This record gives sequence, structure tokens and C-alpha cells, in this order.
Amino acid sequence: MTTTQTETQVQQWTNLAQQLRVDSIRCTTAAGSGHPTSSMSAADLMAVLLTSYLHYDFDNPKNPNNDHLIFSKGHASPLLYSLYKAAGAISDEELMTLRKFGSRLEGHPAPVLPWVDVATGSLGQGFPIGVGIALAGKYLDKLPYHVWALLGDSEMAEGSIWEAFDHASYYKLDNLVGILDCNRLGQRGETMHGWDTALYAARAEAFGWKAIVIDGHNYDEINQAYAQAIQANGSPTLIVAKTIKGKGVSFLENKNGWHGKALNKEQEEQALKEIPYVRSMIFPVQKPENRQPAPEPAKQELQLPSYDGKEAVATRKAYGDALQALGAANPDIVGLDGEVSNSTYAEEFAKAYPDRYFEQYIAEQQMVAAAVGMSVRQKIPFASTFAAFFTRAYDFIRMAAVSRANIRLCGSHAGVSIGEDGPSQMALEDLAMMRAVFGSTVLYPCDANQTAKLVAEMANHDGIVYMRTTREKTPVIYGPDEEFTVGGSKVVRQSNGDQVTVVAAGITLHEALEAYDELQSEGITIRVIDAYSVKPMDEETILAAAQEVGNKFVVVEDHWPEGGLGDALLDVFTHQDGPLPQVVKLAVQSMPGSGTPAELMEEAGISAHHIVEAVKVLAR
Amino acid sequence: MTTTQTETQVQQWTNLAQQLRVDSIRCTTAAGSGHPTSSMSAADLMAVLLTSYLHYDFDNPKNPNNDHLIFSKGHASPLLYSLYKAAGAISDEELMTLRKFGSRLEGHPAPVLPWVDVATGSLGQGFPIGVGIALAGKYLDKLPYHVWALLGDSEMAEGSIWEAFDHASYYKLDNLVGILDCNRLGQRGETMHGWDTALYAARAEAFGWKAIVIDGHNYDEINQAYAQAIQANGSPTLIVAKTIKGKGVSFLENKNGWHGKALNKEQEEQALKEIPYVRSMIFPVQKPENRQPAPEPAKQELQLPSYDGKEAVATRKAYGDALQALGAANPDIVGLDGEVSNSTYAEEFAKAYPDRYFEQYIAEQQMVAAAVGMSVRQKIPFASTFAAFFTRAYDFIRMAAVSRANIRLCGSHAGVSIGEDGPSQMALEDLAMMRAVFGSTVLYPCDANQTAKLVAEMANHDGIVYMRTTREKTPVIYGPDEEFTVGGSKVVRQSNGDQVTVVAAGITLHEALEAYDELQSEGITIRVIDAYSVKPMDEETILAAAQEVGNKFVVVEDHWPEGGLGDALLDVFTHQDGPLPQVVKLAVQSMPGSGTPAELMEEAGISAHHIVEAVKVLAR
Repeated sequence: MTTTQTETQVQQWTNLAQQLRVDSIRCTTAAGSGHPTSSMSAADLMAVLLTSYLHYDFDNPKNPNNDHLIFSKGHASPLLYSLYKAAGAISDEELMTLRKFGSRLEGHPAPVLPWVDVATGSLGQGFPIGVGIALAGKYLDKLPYHVWALLGDSEMAEGSIWEAFDHASYYKLDNLVGILDCNRLGQRGETMHGWDTALYAARAEAFGWKAIVIDGHNYDEINQAYAQAIQANGSPTLIVAKTIKGKGVSFLENKNGWHGKALNKEQEEQALKEIPYVRSMIFPVQKPENRQPAPEPAKQELQLPSYDGKEAVATRKAYGDALQALGAANPDIVGLDGEVSNSTYAEEFAKAYPDRYFEQYIAEQQMVAAAVGMSVRQKIPFASTFAAFFTRAYDFIRMAAVSRANIRLCGSHAGVSIGEDGPSQMALEDLAMMRAVFGSTVLYPCDANQTAKLVAEMANHDGIVYMRTTREKTPVIYGPDEEFTVGGSKVVRQSNGDQVTVVAAGITLHEALEAYDELQSEGITIRVIDAYSVKPMDEETILAAAQEVGNKFVVVEDHWPEGGLGDALLDVFTHQDGPLPQVVKLAVQSMPGSGTPAELMEEAGISAHHIVEAVKVLAR
Repeated sequence: MTTTQTETQVQQWTNLAQQLRVDSIRCTTAAGSGHPTSSMSAADLMAVLLTSYLHYDFDNPKNPNNDHLIFSKGHASPLLYSLYKAAGAISDEELMTLRKFGSRLEGHPAPVLPWVDVATGSLGQGFPIGVGIALAGKYLDKLPYHVWALLGDSEMAEGSIWEAFDHASYYKLDNLVGILDCNRLGQRGETMHGWDTALYAARAEAFGWKAIVIDGHNYDEINQAYAQAIQANGSPTLIVAKTIKGKGVSFLENKNGWHGKALNKEQEEQALKEIPYVRSMIFPVQKPENRQPAPEPAKQELQLPSYDGKEAVATRKAYGDALQALGAANPDIVGLDGEVSNSTYAEEFAKAYPDRYFEQYIAEQQMVAAAVGMSVRQKIPFASTFAAFFTRAYDFIRMAAVSRANIRLCGSHAGVSIGEDGPSQMALEDLAMMRAVFGSTVLYPCDANQTAKLVAEMANHDGIVYMRTTREKTPVIYGPDEEFTVGGSKVVRQSNGDQVTVVAAGITLHEALEAYDELQSEGITIRVIDAYSVKPMDEETILAAAQEVGNKFVVVEDHWPEGGLGDALLDVFTHQDGPLPQVVKLAVQSMPGSGTPAELMEEAGISAHHIVEAVKVLAR
């Protein structure tokens, strides 16, 4: 690659940029909505990238050697799709389906298109995910591909962007290039820092990046910047490009009020007159070299830990044990944790497989983004922190589902049963949050053997898979040979004379068993179901209980009453004909403080004692 | 204030710091858990602050002139409580109740103590909330109080911290002082940047702050730094203090493995031998000057907008109209928006009351934090963005509930009915997320008059109050004199012959009305309930329908099936004796793409047509 461009190159870049602008206008006008002006500002930047720097095999999007191009400013999707057209990947006809029902060309990029790694459109996410892909490239694949992330200046206000800056330099990701399309104008006026490109450069440098400030419409400067970026050694590069929103059309350039607005037919006609544009040209994109990802050790048979039940074991400990075992069996397993690995027990994996463990410090958004990035490269990421702190990354989890990512999350220290640390550390909404993620799986084991088996299940399960673990040690009630599956449950107590069904999971299952004993001694028998698969729930077993025991249920959970195990149970009955059973929900109803786990569970009304009372009222 | 300390001062600081260290050890040892070493590193910093710089009336925590001291590193609560003891606010006896059931001294600070503004313990939150308080101080109260935020170096990895840096300098908050207790050690080892104090200073400076690097155990340097900080003009100050975790006790100093760990009795004895410590002394704290907050215009009678029903109006538009009206009536109303005010219509308030509107750019965490800070100063904040993007701030919303904050949030563009923009912009989990917040209120109006009335209700309602608004224009079905209350509902269609009850809210209410007409024409009558108060739900009306109509319900919502309106409805029946009715849930079951609102609602199975089908099956 020479850094002095030829006239031919400049002509090609010009042709392509103009085509990208024209197509961005045409497809949004056809759609009647969309973001042409946000596309036009970055057209020159992308024209040079596509034709002179990007290495990508459009015929084989899964080629491990491909560069990754992520539009962190996802609203510039018209530009991205116009690039795909220019590369010959989609037809002009398809381009004109933008934003129409059934089209692959959604309002914001989504991986329904094979060249889109991840969904963007919630600002400040594509870039951190790019960090994850770059981590995989540098440390796992060990391939020379680059990750190019196009950023908007509005999204520089998102904290997640700075988590990404921090992590990228910490991990010396010289395979990552951020391209900041600094067009000054956000949705409703000037952005926080307008055209202060020096400010962005200074911040990037303070965060350990190399920063290059350019005129984003000057091909020479763009070309030089990319040339420098790919020579980077030991640090990532941010190209801060001063650009003009709506560049190329006089009545759009640097004008407020044109964000997210398509031109009407007349405006389109007028605009196209201003842009010298011949026809739909195809611009060849360089294919990457054909290298192999770094060899991995062979997969081995999984040897899960087992627990003999002689002593209580925290499910979080079993998570760590099992993750380490998975790591031995499968070299694709990757560990991530938010600076609490000695609490979540991810440290066991970290110590055993330091090459596949990436410390994420206290940056939960970046952690989930890194997991999504790993998923793009077909790794099997397990990311952990306190369950409460996954709330920090909910937008990332939501978007991971839109990205059809395959990530595994483990949240420890759930519920009031953590005790003395108090409510800031207690996850009491995580089940609600994780159930309300498209296609998610939510697991909540109660003992160590069950946890180990379910961790193994997680590795084999697609989508967003969440496990909730418990801080306290709990008795081991299952043998190491017992099987547990996503969508399963266990009936742990039953008889012909059951009067009420108690549904519990995790820590409350042990309360239910204590309640069973107490009720038994008073001549009342209950069925106890361990609903460890909160989503999907084992409908068959629940409905069978309704039939066999009668329509009386108590559901008990260490969670707010909304959206958790209780609501999941109720939902089962909406899938049947006929009325629902009587259900009593026991859940945390008041704001907890500090105390011992037992004190707090008692106060919350979810201890054995409360289950006994609830059953007695129902059994009358 | 002289910047040259006297010997007396140094002796006082020394005495206090030693007492703080001793008390931090004593109370955690008594508790058997907690964070003594994270407290000891900051003892010198806090000793100088308490005795020489803080202005605080401990007898009157609501004094508007008080400084605000926020432990963003909430796990240093032993130090905070020891400060309260030193100031004479709590007794040694109470200090020894740390972390015990029923004590006000929780594991992490919470406003059950009158001197604690906000709960901390989820790292990276106290500091952004401090930005909110400082905004109120500088621009609303116009009082010279300072906000002092103690930060840990671990939390510098949180993106929210950098949102706070960005906003504080943007708004020139020279009344804000960050004190970074850079003790190098996090929970599981060294933090991301260890003792690289220059790095933190450079970053703060790049973010427009003044930064002062000091030895956090050198009283002269500490004193000079505070003296400089309170002289700041036009920019906030970060004091980067290099400190030693466990400072003062040889076997704790700079030792890994001592995070969040109390000393046992013997270790305590050994430690106390190393710290010259006399007795429990009281250290007087300067009271603030007695000034009045900036005068506000008188409250006026509220003149809500009204809509005559001649044309459809989007509820988001009515939100903006009503917020502007509220602004006229009540000078305590404050507006905040995440750079989408022309979509949420918060711009109407922004234009009318620019002095009380604070643009938050695309930084949703900082936006919610600013709202919480405003709530600390008794303002009535309304913060808005796309409903989907409140997921970005879920941890802040969760913690706002622990803080007992009073904040109002409005999320626009909910559900698949936004149309072409696609799933990244569609809130389909916001009801689940917001229901699962302690003590929250969740409102979802369907028309403009209802919206206006409910916005007025929000202003008068404590806790976390959330309103979901719709992008599309919807018919105005209620007159301007109709009343709507938190916890209410409206039966919009009913007769004696109703066969099924349809429960809807927001956009789906209109689908339900269309279904009503269609069913009516086929001789089937349904009851239609507008459950605009999703939480709390109007149980009385729902249970009356169950009794009068019979036990057949269809619930329809533009939301995932989990945790939303459907689950809220089901929950109502768990509060009654006897079995639940048959409930059919209509909700979004597959990942939407782009399309028209009508196409997407049809595909999602939540259109009138689907309601008709569901009713017919039930009515058989």
C-alpha cells in the first residue's frame, strides 16, 4: 500500500463516494424515511476504506480472515447498504427495499444480512463490540484482520465508548481503527462538542490511543490516515474526521433539521442534479489473505466437577468449577469477568486458561460487548459479575438479542440472601430483566451438581443464556449423575396426597424443602418443584401438578414480585385452555437493608416459615 | 482559609484520621464483614475535608446551604459512618451496629441515614449523581455549596464516570470536587491502571477538568489541593490522590487479599496497637452560611393542554405539551433529555424554560443520575429519551429506588408500532424493566388528554414514576375533563352481555376498540378495559370484570410476553382467593424488522384482527 494516491485512485474514490451519496439519498427517498445526511458525511471516508483498505470476501462472510466493518453509528445504514451494493453484494433493486416490511435492509443494520456482524442503532455499542472482535483477532484467532468501526460524534457522549477506549488501549489492540465521522450535528442540533476535533483527539490520546485529525472529505488525508492506522503497533488508532453532514448537496450541507429525514421526490431530483453520478458501478474489494486461525488444542471429553453432598457448596463456586472444566474440554470457551472473579469464581477459569480469559474490570457494558464480539468470531463467551450489575449492561443484552449473538452470562450474589452487603449488591430484578430478552434462556440452579450440569448446557445453547447463582453455600441435594436440561424441572417431593404445589428455584428451593418437612410433621403433604429453568419453564410438569395436586400453587422467589419466577409460572397457564389455578406468590415486597441471610429472607417473607403459612391457608 | 496549615491543624487532622482508621476497623470487626482497608486509604483525605473544608449542618441535613459529601466508592461506608461519629452525628454504640439487621448503617450507604443523599455501592453512580446536585447548586439554587465526591480507582473503569466528567466540564461545574482515592487495589488484585495517577489526571484534563495529583497521606498536599479546588472558576476539579490501601497498619498496607474483609478480633487488637488512638473525639464541622436559594417565580394554577379529538395526536406530543404546562405552573419542574427532545417533545419545555432544562446528550446514565441529583435538592425532574434507551440506565434506575429518589421518566417510541426504524429503537422490555423496580409507578396512556392528566399526576407522585409514550398519532378518545389517576383504569366498552374482557393500554387500546366494533358487528360483545396504570393496576375494576363478564380475558400489549401488561394482569388474580380466570396473552413473539406500524403490529399478532380471533376462540 502506497500512501501517495494516484489520479486513478482519486477518481475511483470520487466515483464511489458520489455513488454512495446518491444511493443513500435514493434508497431513503424510496423508503420515505431514514438518514441520508448522516450517510453523506461519511461517504468519502467509506469510499477510500472500501476500495483501498478493507479486506473482505463478500462471497464468504464467515471467512475468518475477513476484516470487520461495524457501523457503530447504525443510523448511517443507507451508506452501509450502498457500500454493499457498490461491492456487488446486493442489487440496486434490493437497495430500494430499504425499511420495507420483509426486507433484509432494516432501518438500522442487523445480522439478517450476512455481512453485518452485529445489530447497531443503540449508539455507543458497535464500537465496544469492535473491541471484542479485535480482542479475538489479536489474542485468539491471531489473524491479521482489522476491525474498522465508524463512529458518530453524538455517540461520543456515551460512557460505553470510553470503556471501549480504555479496554482497547489496555489490551494494545493495534488491529482496531475507530473512524469518527465528526459532522457536528446530532438529532436535534449541535452535538456536545461540535467540530472540536482536537478535543476528541486529546481524549483518545489520554486514553492511550493514537489519534489522527483529518478533513474527512480530503482523500489525501483520509488515505494517509488509514495507511498510518494499519501500521499501528501496540495501540489502536482513532481517525477524527471533520465532516459535513449532508456533504455534496448544497441545501443539505451542515443544515440543522435534516437528521433522520428523507428527501421527497422533488428534493431528491434537485439533489441528484448536484452530484455528478453516472450509473451503478461495482467497485472490487480486496479479499483477505487465506490464513488459518491459530491452532487450538483438540476438544476433550468434558469432566464436570461433582459434589458428594457431604458439605454445602455455593452454586457460584460450582459455576467456577464447571467453567474451568468446560475450558479444559473446549478451547472455544472464553472467560470474561467484571473485576469480581474471586466472587463469581470465574477466577478458576482465569487461572487455568489465562490466554482465554479477559479481565473486564468494572465495565459491565464493555464486558457484554466483548462477549458479543467473541460470539461474532464463533467463540463461546461466558461473562460474569454480580447479578445486580448486569442491569448496567441491559441495553447491550437487549441489543445482543437483536444481533442474534450467542453469549452466556452468569450473575452471582442474587437476592436478599446475600446478607450484610445490602440492597445495592442484591439482584432483585435480574430474572425480570433477563426473561424479557428475546429468545433468552434463564437458569437458576439450587445446588452444585445441578449448577455444573447446567453450565455445560449453557455452552451448547444458542442465544442469550443467563444463569443466576447464589452467594451462600447451599446443601447438595442432587447426585452427580442427575441430568438437567434447558426447559426442564425436577419434582423433588411428591406423593399421592399432595395438597399444594410449591414451586421454587435456587435458594428458595431449600426453604421449600424445609417447609415440606415442617408441613409433613403436621400431616400436610406438598409437591415441591424445582423450576431451575425459569425460561423456558417446564410446562408439562407444572400442568401435571395442576392436574394431579389440584389447582393450588405457592411460588417463592428471592426477587421482586414482578417479572420473575412467579410471573413465569403464571404464564404457563395462559398456554392452556380453561381457568388458571390459584397461585400465591411469595417474593420480596419491601426494600431490604443489611442483616444475615436468614434474617433478610425471613423479613422478605420468603423463608420456610412463610411457605408453611401460605400452604396452610391454601390447604384449608 | 489559609493554605498553610498550622501545627494545631495537623494534629487535629492526624487525630481524626487515626480515629477514622480505628473506627473503620472496629465497626467492621464487630460486623464480621465490610471494607476496612478501602476506608483506611481515604482517612487522611476525609479528615482534612471534614474539619477544614466541609460546610455541613448535621443538625439540619435539609439545610439548602449544606455541602454534599457523596461516597461514590460506597464500600468505604465504614469511613463515612466513622466521619458521622466524629462529627457527633451518631454514637459509638450505633457505629458498632454496622451491617446488623435493622441498623441504619447498612453495608453500603443508603438514605435511611439523613446525611446520606443517595445510595451508593453500585460503582460509578455517586459521582454522576454529584454532577446532578452540582447542576442544581449552580443553576437552580444558585447557592455556593460544594459537592465533594469520593471516588475509587476501580470505578474509573465505568463509562458512567466519563459521562460525568464530560457533563461536569460542559456545564462548568466549579462547585464540584472529585477526590480520587487511588489505592491501586481492587477487589481481586490491581486495578486497570494501578497507581498511574498521571494517567487519571491526563484523562480528567482532556475532559476539561482541572486535575491535581497529590500524595493522599500528605496533609500539606491534601490541604493545598482542597484550597485550590474551592477557588476553582469555570471548571470542576479532580484531586488524584495516591494512597495506600489499609494505610496505617503494617500487615494491611498495600496488601492484596484484604478487599472487603474484616479483621478478626486478634487482628483487630494487633492493628489497633499500631495506630496511636486515644478515645472517641468529636471534631466540629463548620456550618454553612445561611443563604436563601435563588427566588423562584410563584407557583401558578396548572393549565393543562386539552385536545378536542378532531385529529389524532401522539401521546409523546401530549407529554411535551403537558410538561410545558407543568413548567409554567411549578418552578420546581426540571427537564432533562438525551439528545432526542424533538422526538420525545421535551423540546417544548426546553424552549419555554431554558433555565430549567439541561440537555443530557446521548448519555442516559448521566441523565438518570442528574435526575436523582435534582431530586436530592427537592426539584421535580422529568427525564426523557426513547423508551428502549432507558435500558442503558437500568442500574441507575434500580439504585434510584434504593436511594428513595423521586424521579419521573418518560420513554417514547415504545413497541413495534414505531415502524421503519427497526428493533434497535423499539422498547419491548421497558414495562418489564420498570415494573421490577421497587415502589415504581408505570403509566401507559393511549390518548392525548389522558397523557396530559397523567403527566400532571407524575409531578405529584413520589418514587420512580415511568410513562411510556407512543410514536404514532392515536385518536383522542377521552374528553379533556376526564380524570385519570395512578392506580386507575377506564372501562371504555361494556354491556350486560359481555362475553370476554379485553385488557389493553396505549397503542393496543385502539386495536381493542377496533376489535370491539368488528366483534359487535358479528354479535359478540366484549368489555374493553384501558389499563393505563400498569403498576399499580386497578385491581377492583379487573376483578369486577372477572365477576361480571366471566373468567375470560384477553390481554394485548406491544411488548415481549414477559413482564409487561399481561404479567401485571395475571398478578392481580394472585391477590384474590380462588382460581384465576382464563387469560390469553397477545404480545410480540418474534423479532421484528422494519415495516409500517400496521404491518409490524399485524405480524406481531397484536392487531385488532388478532384480538378478534382470540376473543372468538374464548367466547366459544
